[in-house]
Amino acid sequence: MTTKMREIRLKSRPVGLPVAENFELAEVALPAPAQGEVLVRNLWMSVDPYMRGRMYDRPSYAPPFQLGEPLQGGAIGRVEQSNHPDFATGDLVESMNGWREGFVSIGGALQKLPNENVPPQAYLGVLGMPGLTAYSGLARIGEPKPGDTVFVSGAAGAVGAAVCQIARLRGCRVVASAGSDAKLSWLRSVGVDAGVNYKTCGNLLEAVRAAAPNGIDIYFDNVGGDHLEVALELARPFARFIECGMISAYNDTELKPGPRNIIYVVGKSLKMQGFIVTNYWDMRDQFRVEMTQWIKDGKMKWEETVENGIENAPKAFLGLFSGVNSGKMLVKLG
Amino acid sequence: MTTKMREIRLKSRPVGLPVAENFELAEVALPAPAQGEVLVRNLWMSVDPYMRGRMYDRPSYAPPFQLGEPLQGGAIGRVEQSNHPDFATGDLVESMNGWREGFVSIGGALQKLPNENVPPQAYLGVLGMPGLTAYSGLARIGEPKPGDTVFVSGAAGAVGAAVCQIARLRGCRVVASAGSDAKLSWLRSVGVDAGVNYKTCGNLLEAVRAAAPNGIDIYFDNVGGDHLEVALELARPFARFIECGMISAYNDTELKPGPRNIIYVVGKSLKMQGFIVTNYWDMRDQFRVEMTQWIKDGKMKWEETVENGIENAPKAFLGLFSGVNSGKMLVKLG
Repeated sequence: MTTKMREIRLKSRPVGLPVAENFELAEVALPAPAQGEVLVRNLWMSVDPYMRGRMYDRPSYAPPFQLGEPLQGGAIGRVEQSNHPDFATGDLVESMNGWREGFVSIGGALQKLPNENVPPQAYLGVLGMPGLTAYSGLARIGEPKPGDTVFVSGAAGAVGAAVCQIARLRGCRVVASAGSDAKLSWLRSVGVDAGVNYKTCGNLLEAVRAAAPNGIDIYFDNVGGDHLEVALELARPFARFIECGMISAYNDTELKPGPRNIIYVVGKSLKMQGFIVTNYWDMRDQFRVEMTQWIKDGKMKWEETVENGIENAPKAFLGLFSGVNSGKMLVKLG
Repeated sequence: MTTKMREIRLKSRPVGLPVAENFELAEVALPAPAQGEVLVRNLWMSVDPYMRGRMYDRPSYAPPFQLGEPLQGGAIGRVEQSNHPDFATGDLVESMNGWREGFVSIGGALQKLPNENVPPQAYLGVLGMPGLTAYSGLARIGEPKPGDTVFVSGAAGAVGAAVCQIARLRGCRVVASAGSDAKLSWLRSVGVDAGVNYKTCGNLLEAVRAAAPNGIDIYFDNVGGDHLEVALELARPFARFIECGMISAYNDTELKPGPRNIIYVVGKSLKMQGFIVTNYWDMRDQFRVEMTQWIKDGKMKWEETVENGIENAPKAFLGLFSGVNSGKMLVKLG
């Protein structure tokens, strides 16, 4: 007895900006789960900017995706058949087996969702990896103090939007950069103090300076490039730069010049620190408790941009690089 | 009763590399010290790369030098007349009143040298600001562990040479970059494991890679520019970059592109942190005790490059930017 499921495979490695032709849809026949295994049908899958890095054939913190193999990523599914004592039909589970409609897995690779009154896909966003990225990076590298000015680039993305709201909850003033007025309007509705539309503002430095006239104490970087140079220019002494991502460079086919004012790191005693979310895995339990409470108290909001069907997963992923998403970009599978 | 002393004043602000014409020698008549004051004749003065920054007319961590006024910097002098109860004729004192043969000061601005059996000018070098810079930056930002590979640029300078030896004393493997084979030979004589002559090595990346085949855990940056880019390339995950200085950029008249591989800060979870020595002033007592002991035990060596006479102070300063000095650059005044 097999079950047919579709999946997205990496057909060719992108050169520069990924295109639809780098992906292919395939159908596989899943066997019935053996002893200790579980058959899961995915309801939601995540697409995230970091996945671009795994499409290069080079060593990094995660191994490269393999050509002809299904991609991987966060997913929320429902147990359809279980031969594992810890899982029952109907259980909602989290896995790294995204980019496919379903899968058979050993139970140990799955995690049951907590029994909280939140939509399951939140565990791919504000309560999942992007949320923990925001929460832990801000805490461990940013060390926010009440009154600090926090500048966030890519502020309307899944990570950025969480950073903005957590920083507000920590008593900070938040200046957000995003690529549309609609995104900025939403960010203001959740408490962001000032916003810059980097696509229409003209001189980015002067626009951010106007929004942060006393300078920046913390920069949460999702973008790199010009935004990083502007943040260096406006940084106050002892500012902390949380280097979470540099989406502006993920598709570069050649090396671009770095920030021309990197010397400010010395004179202003800046700290610029990169991280990946697994560095701060020890904060996960604390994060889930505090974030869940914020959600229940109405203190944490999020947006979702949803594509439907596994066949549209590449489109969802490609949309990250043109910023079509507001908030968490998801693919609904079930 | 006045005493004639000569001093060096800033005549014009350098544009690019400073030249002799930016400085002028002047003679002043010092009054007799009033109550609470001390007349000091300087024996030694320091020239340091950071002084270049104070020649720009812009706000920074130290106020800019003023045109027509004497420059400032570390100096060691001998008390010639005292109207302060804490100082007696003959006392050796440290001050920030360098660039002059002598001065009258309130006693509170002076610090008596400890009574240790070390040459007094060491308090401008290995036991002074450069030594504390090396000691505190390595400890607080570098967090060295035995077995770490430490890459040091500007390794033959006053700060760099101390960093190399402290890192060895902390159990690290040390790779040094300097601008002459003679400097590297001296560095090897004090325990440095591998050296790169950046002026003759050809491809700096490949030369440093050969000297640090397992990558870099700590980079102590005195230079910036190409050295920083190379260190980013060779950094191991979680490497620490101690951003002490970027002498390669101090005389730039226009902004130069930054490191093209700055994105590694994210993927490798690097920490890049700038500092000035006063950030870690709390380590000063501990530093003096430990460094003095190392000197007495023969575990810490240093070189000095000495110019004689206040009239040669500008020449000594200019020499820092072509690297004519091995070790601490000093001007002998008394």
